[in-house]
Amino acid sequence: MTGHPQQIDRHLLDSYAETARCCADLSGRVIRKWFRAGFDVHSKPDNTPVTIADREAEEAICDLIERRHPGDGILGEETGTTNPGADWLWVIDPIDGTKGFSTGLPTFGTLIALLYRGKPVIGVMDHPALDERWVGVAGAPTTHNGRPCRTRQTDRLSDASVHVTTPDMFDPQRQGQMDILTKRCRFRVFGGDCYNYGLVASGFSDLVCEADLKPHDYCALIPVLEGAGGVITDWQGRPPGLESTGEILASGCRTIHRQALEALNAAG
Amino acid sequence: MTGHPQQIDRHLLDSYAETARCCADLSGRVIRKWFRAGFDVHSKPDNTPVTIADREAEEAICDLIERRHPGDGILGEETGTTNPGADWLWVIDPIDGTKGFSTGLPTFGTLIALLYRGKPVIGVMDHPALDERWVGVAGAPTTHNGRPCRTRQTDRLSDASVHVTTPDMFDPQRQGQMDILTKRCRFRVFGGDCYNYGLVASGFSDLVCEADLKPHDYCALIPVLEGAGGVITDWQGRPPGLESTGEILASGCRTIHRQALEALNAAG
Repeated sequence: MTGHPQQIDRHLLDSYAETARCCADLSGRVIRKWFRAGFDVHSKPDNTPVTIADREAEEAICDLIERRHPGDGILGEETGTTNPGADWLWVIDPIDGTKGFSTGLPTFGTLIALLYRGKPVIGVMDHPALDERWVGVAGAPTTHNGRPCRTRQTDRLSDASVHVTTPDMFDPQRQGQMDILTKRCRFRVFGGDCYNYGLVASGFSDLVCEADLKPHDYCALIPVLEGAGGVITDWQGRPPGLESTGEILASGCRTIHRQALEALNAAG
Repeated sequence: MTGHPQQIDRHLLDSYAETARCCADLSGRVIRKWFRAGFDVHSKPDNTPVTIADREAEEAICDLIERRHPGDGILGEETGTTNPGADWLWVIDPIDGTKGFSTGLPTFGTLIALLYRGKPVIGVMDHPALDERWVGVAGAPTTHNGRPCRTRQTDRLSDASVHVTTPDMFDPQRQGQMDILTKRCRFRVFGGDCYNYGLVASGFSDLVCEADLKPHDYCALIPVLEGAGGVITDWQGRPPGLESTGEILASGCRTIHRQALEALNAAG
């Protein structure tokens, strides 16, 4: 086995993917129990909200990983890092979209990524309140609820739809860049959190443009997008890794991705 | 019968509510057939999108109303006005959130309102992709999927969550007002369209602040919010009618509504 994911043993990868799916089954059960059930919303030091559902879901995921793959590293949104030097690193966001989750919006999702020597090779995006799941595994087609899905081909930015979770994720300069891009598109839709990337992976929409994301927000999206025929980079066109800027651009096809990168950097 | 809705014959109102529910059953069937099925998105003269699903759903609703209540007025988003002088006026938005609908987001909704001499007395908010429906009928508790629902009591704006569909609905002055309000809240969530009002009606969230809405966007929300214990007015605190400014503020309780109105008008 080498650092090139395409040379990772297939059986090993399939067994890891099975663990990732089981993690999502477990976290989904925890989260469904709490969704709309009434709970306190606490503020973390960075002023983002966290609930008992985030904590219990992450604990369920980490417990399973530690039992099945005890030497692996884990980077969890709520609990920090375990075994940081390991070749295999799990990156977990138990609830992406906690604000929406805590107001009863069903589009929030659980993100489970597995990286091999820094490169994301498995990504699971699970939406327990919608019973929808996207799974991406390096070298295999991405699935949406178990069936292969593909992005769509759109030739012109002016025909593309674009998603942005919230204007609050941009500083003034990046807000200007995002505005130039999204106003060249056919229309922009706000909201959605990670669910937007599933819409692109399934060919229902064209683009997602975001900033200020953390590895737990985007690592799982990479195998999902790439295995569906899409493209995901930072705003400079570089592959997003653990040390990325947190600016993310995801597209259904290379044509739109190139035009979107040009628009984002038109002002610079 | 007089102009006061509370004096409208109960049996007549129940029979109208039954028609409204049947309309939503019909439009839901049409919309589910098209959701994520691939269709063209056309631009209307005001540059908002419309699809065959909007048109077929509105046609199905109007056909049923015309058969059951032939003398009633109808104001449809896509087809304009029929019998404008009638005492009973149906106000229809077949798909609120067409942009989201056309990108596969499931939170869009169908809005069916019935007004008696200008006052909304029935409102149905139907979400065919989520199998969720809120129904408000003057003088009766609002229901969510058939079960009575209530808003929640929140005492301080700083503890409240607030929803805004998109920053694109505000001109610069109103954007400033909205910013003052939403930044005094605990947090703000973008996206959601009419679904946000259901979250407030069910007590999962506290506030919705929007502008540039048309009667077909807000008439149905009024009986839904009021029958659940909520408050819905324009940004001046006036009841929204057919001639409203299109600025809408909806709250779970009077306390938060008063504080939110103060914040909205703090700069003026």
